Amino acid sequence: MKTGNEFACPIPISQYSQILMAHGGGGKLTHQLIENMFIAAFDNPPLKARHDGAALDMPSSKLAFTTDSYVVQPLFFPGGDIGTLAVNGTVNDLAMCGARPLYLSAGFIIEEGFSMDMLWRVVQSMAQAADEAGIQIVTGDTKVVERGKGDGLFINTAGIGALETGQALSAESIKAGDAVLLSGDIGRHGISIMAVREGLAFESTITSDCAPLSDIVLSLLGSGVGVHCLRDLTRGGLATALVEIAEAGEKHIEIEEARIPVTGEVQGACEILGFDPLYIANEGRFVGFVPASKAENALEQMQAHPLGKQASIIGTVKDDHAGLVTVRSRIGACRVADRISGEQLPRIC
Amino acid sequence: MKTGNEFACPIPISQYSQILMAHGGGGKLTHQLIENMFIAAFDNPPLKARHDGAALDMPSSKLAFTTDSYVVQPLFFPGGDIGTLAVNGTVNDLAMCGARPLYLSAGFIIEEGFSMDMLWRVVQSMAQAADEAGIQIVTGDTKVVERGKGDGLFINTAGIGALETGQALSAESIKAGDAVLLSGDIGRHGISIMAVREGLAFESTITSDCAPLSDIVLSLLGSGVGVHCLRDLTRGGLATALVEIAEAGEKHIEIEEARIPVTGEVQGACEILGFDPLYIANEGRFVGFVPASKAENALEQMQAHPLGKQASIIGTVKDDHAGLVTVRSRIGACRVADRISGEQLPRIC
Repeated sequence: MKTGNEFACPIPISQYSQILMAHGGGGKLTHQLIENMFIAAFDNPPLKARHDGAALDMPSSKLAFTTDSYVVQPLFFPGGDIGTLAVNGTVNDLAMCGARPLYLSAGFIIEEGFSMDMLWRVVQSMAQAADEAGIQIVTGDTKVVERGKGDGLFINTAGIGALETGQALSAESIKAGDAVLLSGDIGRHGISIMAVREGLAFESTITSDCAPLSDIVLSLLGSGVGVHCLRDLTRGGLATALVEIAEAGEKHIEIEEARIPVTGEVQGACEILGFDPLYIANEGRFVGFVPASKAENALEQMQAHPLGKQASIIGTVKDDHAGLVTVRSRIGACRVADRISGEQLPRIC
Repeated sequence: MKTGNEFACPIPISQYSQILMAHGGGGKLTHQLIENMFIAAFDNPPLKARHDGAALDMPSSKLAFTTDSYVVQPLFFPGGDIGTLAVNGTVNDLAMCGARPLYLSAGFIIEEGFSMDMLWRVVQSMAQAADEAGIQIVTGDTKVVERGKGDGLFINTAGIGALETGQALSAESIKAGDAVLLSGDIGRHGISIMAVREGLAFESTITSDCAPLSDIVLSLLGSGVGVHCLRDLTRGGLATALVEIAEAGEKHIEIEEARIPVTGEVQGACEILGFDPLYIANEGRFVGFVPASKAENALEQMQAHPLGKQASIIGTVKDDHAGLVTVRSRIGACRVADRISGEQLPRIC
């Protein structure tokens, strides 16, 4: 993927150990940063053309296009860093459209004084995550803001994917009777960030679930189970994703709490911190809506993939109470899940 | 383009006059901001699908893809604001690839406490600029960072354009004998920002040249003059753009200072501030390289467009001294233009 030593920062520490305003000025230092840091790490032909935009082949007449900015704090956490997140988060948004990830852009907003070595670590994480997800980082941009006008590093990525199947995935496509499948345990990303931020120690380290979902999604879509809708469970967690789908699809979604996998550590942390795991952000989990007749087939498909081993059928779609999400608890009580109105966990992605 | 009153902020000032952390949390307030602010202003079918990614038609098998983050200070300046810039800057990068602009993403990083009304003004500017450039804002993202961890508002845009001609535009394609055409006067954007920032008053207000270049570029490309390379003159200005082209194309570019249009106000401001107009950023100017035999034809094409009235042939490409840019002054002296090593004007885009 790259030449030379992957682990040594290519801009000599003795020369510039920190980002200067001039690294964003468009002159010599910007040129050095682009050549020695970004082009060195993300090495691919469109990027090497060093044009302001990349000229790319498009293998399908339909594409998916998405963007996210990443402002996570801390920048490094168990299971990943802002770079891993910036690639996987956007790859996952493409996957939820049913698209095969192709091309990624990367925009860096760096605070003056940010460690050159940390930037290199993040860039390495991005290159590795892009490699794993099979996406190329083909174009980018770097801006530097004065000390105190940023927070170390913000990254924006935008992604392009190829829409090759005719399946229209949308909340509007869900139907009464559909089974709701969840790909794995929830709550790990948000709690892992929170634990680092608050200096909380649990018996074992809670690791973010950050992962690229395109492979598991494309194999599910290719298996002919007739998926109606897919959604990843980022900001706002499982509950918010389901509320959005129930409202847009004008259906009632009923889920059973006992069927939702949550690790003991996450459950414990949530109890201590006063959080509900249903609302905690994930970065490698999704829900899929499939016809009831294909639910078991879809579940097998998901469980056959390393990222879906803990997949389960957590609920069903109903025609009554359009727009509502209800959660049946372990003791049979039923409550309505709503959007959170305030801020539960800021800056987790 | 939109329904209702374009000038009143759609989120009642009495309710939330400022951005709260919760506007970035993925809950109710994020939902309200997306619905009432972004979808209201950027109104188009892919965006209205309210999916994490937009599903789009791609009319060509080759596309151009580009991104830029915008961190300009102040956010509002004569001739535009960060919103105008965020649309035109990315549209222009697509134009420089020879692409017809199609789709734009918009990522907002907002500092807690930012004025809701200012955000609405910026969003209106983006909608208007997108309309003028014929590009649709089809997908987006909003993040909020704590007070003191940002600087009001940063915007990232990424753009997709259709590459319909077979013309390969690149610095490597320039040839000895090519004429260098400049589309208009230089230095206005950078100096207009600097004047506001430093509270400088000139006889008349210096207005940014910020404008979408796709129309003038597509008509130039369509006129059959055989363009070899195009480059817009943003960070680092005309000189830096030419140095990059000369180095990548391994040619000598010689320009004549007397042929480069600079207004008296910009010239005066540069003399007072100690800047060289050749290095000042522009947001609506570009250079084109065409065969000498087509130079006059190309010049006529450019001058026929409202954004190219002041276009001129400013120099030629030579085979000697590969990688050098030389500037012949009004009195016949010749100097080498190099990249600037430091930071001339920070945060002008």
